[in-house]
Amino acid sequence: MWTLAQIADLVGGVVKGDDTFQVDSVGTLQDAKTNQLSFLANTKYKKYLAATRAGAVLVSEQSLADVPNHAIVVADPYVAYAKAASLLNPVKQHQTGIHASASVSPDSHVHSSVSIGAQAVIGSAVELAENVIIGPGCVVQSGVKIGSDTRLTANVTLCDSVQIGKRVLIHPGVVIGADGFGIANDQGKWIKVPQLGSVRVGNDVEIGANTTIDRGALEDTVIGNGVKLDNQIQIGHNVIIGENTVIAGSAGVAGSTRIGKNCVIGGAVILAGHLEIADGVHLTGGTAVSKSITESGAYSSGMTAEPSQQWRRNIVRYRQLDKLVDRVKQLESKNK
Amino acid sequence: MWTLAQIADLVGGVVKGDDTFQVDSVGTLQDAKTNQLSFLANTKYKKYLAATRAGAVLVSEQSLADVPNHAIVVADPYVAYAKAASLLNPVKQHQTGIHASASVSPDSHVHSSVSIGAQAVIGSAVELAENVIIGPGCVVQSGVKIGSDTRLTANVTLCDSVQIGKRVLIHPGVVIGADGFGIANDQGKWIKVPQLGSVRVGNDVEIGANTTIDRGALEDTVIGNGVKLDNQIQIGHNVIIGENTVIAGSAGVAGSTRIGKNCVIGGAVILAGHLEIADGVHLTGGTAVSKSITESGAYSSGMTAEPSQQWRRNIVRYRQLDKLVDRVKQLESKNK
Amino acid sequence: MWTLAQIADLVGGVVKGDDTFQVDSVGTLQDAKTNQLSFLANTKYKKYLAATRAGAVLVSEQSLADVPNHAIVVADPYVAYAKAASLLNPVKQHQTGIHASASVSPDSHVHSSVSIGAQAVIGSAVELAENVIIGPGCVVQSGVKIGSDTRLTANVTLCDSVQIGKRVLIHPGVVIGADGFGIANDQGKWIKVPQLGSVRVGNDVEIGANTTIDRGALEDTVIGNGVKLDNQIQIGHNVIIGENTVIAGSAGVAGSTRIGKNCVIGGAVILAGHLEIADGVHLTGGTAVSKSITESGAYSSGMTAEPSQQWRRNIVRYRQLDKLVDRVKQLESKNK
Repeated sequence: MWTLAQIADLVGGVVKGDDTFQVDSVGTLQDAKTNQLSFLANTKYKKYLAATRAGAVLVSEQSLADVPNHAIVVADPYVAYAKAASLLNPVKQHQTGIHASASVSPDSHVHSSVSIGAQAVIGSAVELAENVIIGPGCVVQSGVKIGSDTRLTANVTLCDSVQIGKRVLIHPGVVIGADGFGIANDQGKWIKVPQLGSVRVGNDVEIGANTTIDRGALEDTVIGNGVKLDNQIQIGHNVIIGENTVIAGSAGVAGSTRIGKNCVIGGAVILAGHLEIADGVHLTGGTAVSKSITESGAYSSGMTAEPSQQWRRNIVRYRQLDKLVDRVKQLESKNK
Repeated sequence: MWTLAQIADLVGGVVKGDDTFQVDSVGTLQDAKTNQLSFLANTKYKKYLAATRAGAVLVSEQSLADVPNHAIVVADPYVAYAKAASLLNPVKQHQTGIHASASVSPDSHVHSSVSIGAQAVIGSAVELAENVIIGPGCVVQSGVKIGSDTRLTANVTLCDSVQIGKRVLIHPGVVIGADGFGIANDQGKWIKVPQLGSVRVGNDVEIGANTTIDRGALEDTVIGNGVKLDNQIQIGHNVIIGENTVIAGSAGVAGSTRIGKNCVIGGAVILAGHLEIADGVHLTGGTAVSKSITESGAYSSGMTAEPSQQWRRNIVRYRQLDKLVDRVKQLESKNK
Repeated sequence: MWTLAQIADLVGGVVKGDDTFQVDSVGTLQDAKTNQLSFLANTKYKKYLAATRAGAVLVSEQSLADVPNHAIVVADPYVAYAKAASLLNPVKQHQTGIHASASVSPDSHVHSSVSIGAQAVIGSAVELAENVIIGPGCVVQSGVKIGSDTRLTANVTLCDSVQIGKRVLIHPGVVIGADGFGIANDQGKWIKVPQLGSVRVGNDVEIGANTTIDRGALEDTVIGNGVKLDNQIQIGHNVIIGENTVIAGSAGVAGSTRIGKNCVIGGAVILAGHLEIADGVHLTGGTAVSKSITESGAYSSGMTAEPSQQWRRNIVRYRQLDKLVDRVKQLESKNK
């Protein structure tokens, strides 16, 4: 249980109502009960505010009048909610120690505060710092170094020599440090180009389920501090992603592309290889990028759904566009 | 061995020929032998019918004349084939019991008929109902509940508190219940929004290899009864998928989108977040959906392959479309 | 340490300088040291050649003049680099034998030279030939056959009866032989079509992290010799991929499509099902293919990123294309 005063203090807000009132969890405006804290971040949900049974609501100044119970007024209710929800739902404590079924190489360096789950594998010369949590089924191969307070949830694979920073959260099925796609055509047959670089992941990074990040060919693939990657993203070898850039699910970044800081990259975006993307670029979902982008701002590509019949007609028109331009030219010459 | 009479009974068909004739397996029209049952569902393969050596063939009334051996006449040969093939190829019996190398939490509830494979991990307070099969290498985390006759084939990860229905089939590499992609921008740095919901998967669902389904932010992500998901699909947090909807491989559904019942969603389709898709919507492969769809029917988007040279020319024309419209306007004003 | 003479011999080149000079590793032109071999394959990097401190450089004849130290002149510096880098970075020797924590079925056939890692699972009747390496956490199910010198790095899943050739390299998270997406609509409910085929992977194949290859419905899915697949690729049931074809990351191939030999398929390409793609077809990244391609050559589709504001305007114009054609028609009739 936390008082509204304590929460307001954490989120930098002001209590309107009883600041000794206590809440123990969070809920939506529609479903929260008296013992819960809710929030209004999206005006779409404002209609639920007046009737909410939440004991307290995080709101911005302009919505305060409609709060039926206690309120905490904040500049950004969503950020305040994220902080309050983290306070009210602390990450579960993991039992320190190595599960009996785990396989830990005798020459690894495992801090005494580390937790290693069932069936996990820790290879030779691995270094695990304070409070690292290795979930069940994870494979951490030789020479990997993991910074303090980092957690691999389950069935994560870290290949040889990968380096992971502090406070990183890696979800199941992630593979970091598999060979980049390096092949050379030797008279019709493809031969392998050894992938001799590694992967360096910074601090405060989150990596979603089944995302893959390949090791570099000669130099390293680098994921900057504060980067957040969603699920099923493919990051090619030698990609460099700048600090605080976020990428949504199913996106793909081909080899050697450099993405700047503070970019927001939508779901299913694809970036060709060897590009430079400036800081602060925003790519909307589904965009395909084939050239470097040198200025911050929003970029897009792609068509969106229309009835299939109409789509078929438009595609035909598109294919005839060249001829249409010719017809317009001819008309123009007649109308000179 | 099954007689044609038995099979006809199962599939609701009528035997033309010897109904005591026996078959023991299925095969294609081109390759089947006398002891095998074949089928004609796609007219593309009709050319192989007259010469087939299959002992019997599942056909519709109109193709009966061309069957050289015995036939079973049915309304829908593909559905009949699916049923007959299941009869002739029963799912392999799994040995009941827990493999010696598996790690099963002592406070889990495992029915005596359950099979748990090598190196699997069953967490605290997990409930496994009758005839559940947990394949090798699977990780089932704390509080997960799995209904009867459900099978996790191998290396599947179910995160804390996920609920799975009855007769569900989950293929390798699937991750259910990893954190949704919830982040809030706190003065330039992204902070985590705790993902407090779970995932509920209904009955008779199939989930393809390496598909990921994230847990909800506050409420649950929900996969309805009879939903069939192919491989490498990404389902964001708080998505709701209605009964009997099918989604083909490599598709992605962003957070909070609701998909209706009986939808057919093609491969590599992407759906933006917070959309409503009506029942009975058909999206052709590769379609990008950025707005809600309120009526059933077929929808599409996207261009399809053309020779690269021509593609480059058309893209240029497309980029000049605005100017072309201006030129037409000018011509029109001259021709008033 | 290798002499330049030895390396020149391996790569079919001619030493210019001291052919007894020795190198022990490779490096980029910018970073290599005296003990290292570098290469110039891409003219983009030519600017670094004159100042490189690399002890020797692999170059083509026309760049020889700018090499400050020793050189090996070759026809294709990238291919030569691939070979030299492999020589200087031999694949790490794996300890022969079965890790104590692995679970190996007593009726499997494991050659004495095989290495099986921690927590791996080898099922019934599996056959592992000479020098096979099964990495930690891999699950190899019943009846799988793996040819000599093949390596599964970690957490790979091979389902029942899959066949893998010689010298194949399979990266973490790969799933081969999961059920194809076979369903039939039985009066509104989808029923499963048993997937009775298998997967056959040829020799000298490489398969990237988290790629999935489904088993066939009745016949096998086939991956030809020398095929190279990048990460997160989805290959549907009954797909056939011809020899020496390469596919980049995040691509998807729907069921029953046949791809010819020596094709180069870019990242995020999607191919519809039941197509035939000729030998020697090149598909640029992001292309969607909905019809068979009968002639070799380069094909493309799709739009690429533009500023979002402009993109919104162009989309509107595109949707009005039909009307624009009508307007041009009207002008033409006035101008006859």
